[in-house]
Amino acid sequence: MTKEKKIVQDNGVGLVETQEFTFESLKLESGEAFGPITLAFETYGALNKEKSNAILIEHALSGDAHAAGIHKNENVFGWWDNFIGPGKAFDTDKYFVISSNIFGGCKGSTGPASLNPKTGKPYALDFPLISINDIVNAQKCLIDHLGIEKLLSVVGGSMGGHQALAWLVNYPKNICSAVPIATTIKHSPQQIAFNEVGRQSIMADAHWKSGNYYDGLAPSKGLAVARMVGHITYMSDKSMAEKFGRAKKEAGEPFKFTADFEVEGYLRYRGDNFVKRFDANSYLYITKAMDNFDASKGKPFQEILRNTKVKVLVISFKSDWLYPAYQSKEIVKACKLAGVETTYCEIDSTYGHDAFLLEVEEESHLIKHFLKKVFYAYEVTGNYGE
Amino acid sequence: MTKEKKIVQDNGVGLVETQEFTFESLKLESGEAFGPITLAFETYGALNKEKSNAILIEHALSGDAHAAGIHKNENVFGWWDNFIGPGKAFDTDKYFVISSNIFGGCKGSTGPASLNPKTGKPYALDFPLISINDIVNAQKCLIDHLGIEKLLSVVGGSMGGHQALAWLVNYPKNICSAVPIATTIKHSPQQIAFNEVGRQSIMADAHWKSGNYYDGLAPSKGLAVARMVGHITYMSDKSMAEKFGRAKKEAGEPFKFTADFEVEGYLRYRGDNFVKRFDANSYLYITKAMDNFDASKGKPFQEILRNTKVKVLVISFKSDWLYPAYQSKEIVKACKLAGVETTYCEIDSTYGHDAFLLEVEEESHLIKHFLKKVFYAYEVTGNYGE
Repeated sequence: MTKEKKIVQDNGVGLVETQEFTFESLKLESGEAFGPITLAFETYGALNKEKSNAILIEHALSGDAHAAGIHKNENVFGWWDNFIGPGKAFDTDKYFVISSNIFGGCKGSTGPASLNPKTGKPYALDFPLISINDIVNAQKCLIDHLGIEKLLSVVGGSMGGHQALAWLVNYPKNICSAVPIATTIKHSPQQIAFNEVGRQSIMADAHWKSGNYYDGLAPSKGLAVARMVGHITYMSDKSMAEKFGRAKKEAGEPFKFTADFEVEGYLRYRGDNFVKRFDANSYLYITKAMDNFDASKGKPFQEILRNTKVKVLVISFKSDWLYPAYQSKEIVKACKLAGVETTYCEIDSTYGHDAFLLEVEEESHLIKHFLKKVFYAYEVTGNYGE
Repeated sequence: MTKEKKIVQDNGVGLVETQEFTFESLKLESGEAFGPITLAFETYGALNKEKSNAILIEHALSGDAHAAGIHKNENVFGWWDNFIGPGKAFDTDKYFVISSNIFGGCKGSTGPASLNPKTGKPYALDFPLISINDIVNAQKCLIDHLGIEKLLSVVGGSMGGHQALAWLVNYPKNICSAVPIATTIKHSPQQIAFNEVGRQSIMADAHWKSGNYYDGLAPSKGLAVARMVGHITYMSDKSMAEKFGRAKKEAGEPFKFTADFEVEGYLRYRGDNFVKRFDANSYLYITKAMDNFDASKGKPFQEILRNTKVKVLVISFKSDWLYPAYQSKEIVKACKLAGVETTYCEIDSTYGHDAFLLEVEEESHLIKHFLKKVFYAYEVTGNYGE
């Protein structure tokens, strides 16, 4: 009762349920056929009868299908709830919003922790190496299943932006627009290096056992350290200074290497929390897919984009040093060179990479107006983008 | 034979030996008396009869006493060999250069891996928590032992810069000048966070055993991951891009999470190499000393500096994001406010934090001319700095 009231006050999408879609097989980029594959997904708003108002939301490394609203008997709003709902950036009074957990993930979709039907045991490292293109190809099966020929937009930040770029490159005829946020055409060695540290940390954990930990203790300490490294890269020097300064924690256990500073306590808390909800092998597979991703397929990106009618909105954030603005500008430059209609905005934020989750007002404004324009054009022409 | 030839060609300080100095006891900042303490040190050049030409070099986190020249039967030049020698920045034809391994270290000085004379076993975590001030107070004992009342300069980069600042604050009457390079008055939460990740990684290693690993396997994997994180922060996005790009390694073992990219192989190599030469417990103690360090002792730094006659040269590097230039500017600003004669230069380097080891030409030029001026003033007045 109280919960429902809260939801009404929040003016959000309200109670939502995660659904599942299973299909038999997918031909992976590696050539291998793999299946069956289940994708967990949620939808918000209603598909119109022209099926012209569908938007696909792509999550980042640690995200899931639960992007908005609240599950029954739970108290956790979706990870992009501030952006999805009536009157919000992704206005559910107008649009039909789809969010799916990626193939390879651990939040309802098939991944390394899923049972291998051939053995009845988790795949672990028998799970195939997957790519961002495989992830997007699996999503395409879901979109086909939903009877949607053309998405109004594909939107995502960070690794979600990789997926938006992969849709732009692989399925230009099936999307009207793409919104890659705080992302890159391909990882720099620094980005690869941070992911590799996370992977090494997991694999260094004695409980990892070459991935075969599902019937025992998980490599929680290694995964927690990976997450801690991640968290540093998601914030900025300034946002950390503002949030923690050099404040000390209240004296805890009299151990020499206890968390003295608040920032240490915060990182440990985030690390320890993460391991409760994430699978270490998924972390390995997904980060590897990110590192191997190259939207430009080894060519100049503009060559891949030629003759694309898709409209593009690129957003970056000033203090984001993990996916610095120069990488977004490379996307914009290639789009412009290829004659793609492209809008770019660098939002002046101090939040670092996390800004794509936090800069609600300015980011919503940009997205809302961009979508309005795209939707109008699509409705008028009936076949915008083709 | 070949080696000696090489040394002559290098025009360096030639063959050097590490010496040792042991003293009975030191009163730590915590109040506790600790001893005996041995410091490993090296010297290059000769002390003049006025004892006015002595320069103390301070090493960074993973450094040691071997700053220049070469040891008999070894082929490794000191870590700052490019800067120390005849005609170099620290000209050994003019100056007497002293370099000591810090108290708490693991390269000849007393640290957690040293034998506790009371038990005959390594101290491990019975070693007391030490501070940068303790490290510098121990150095002061060495300098007293060498009969030097006043150092011409105290110079160091990174954690070496912390020590230079600690000398400036604690022993202003015993130094003519200080050269803090690529350093900070106190760590930001981001700097603490990176160190904390390293500590957590070590303590997560099953071999760490609360520090009691000396009679078994060392926590090598955890320490290697700590070092990998460190290496990312020592380079810049640009220097990594220039050094590695997205080049792939030659196909190795057919393992899914092998090091595909050169940057991954490099990090693993650096991590694996580091564990051969460094003690994990020392890493914990030293990083904690860095994080707890505050040269300003909780006050505005300029208040601590009032009436200081020491000359200061501050150097930072444009692409150094671990110790960003704004932190060096804070030192400069406080010095200026306190009326301290201060020179500042931000060197336009792409090497990141590692620049203090690599930007030989410009950095040498700055240091050489600064020292010349300080030395001249000291020789003329006989008591410069007092």
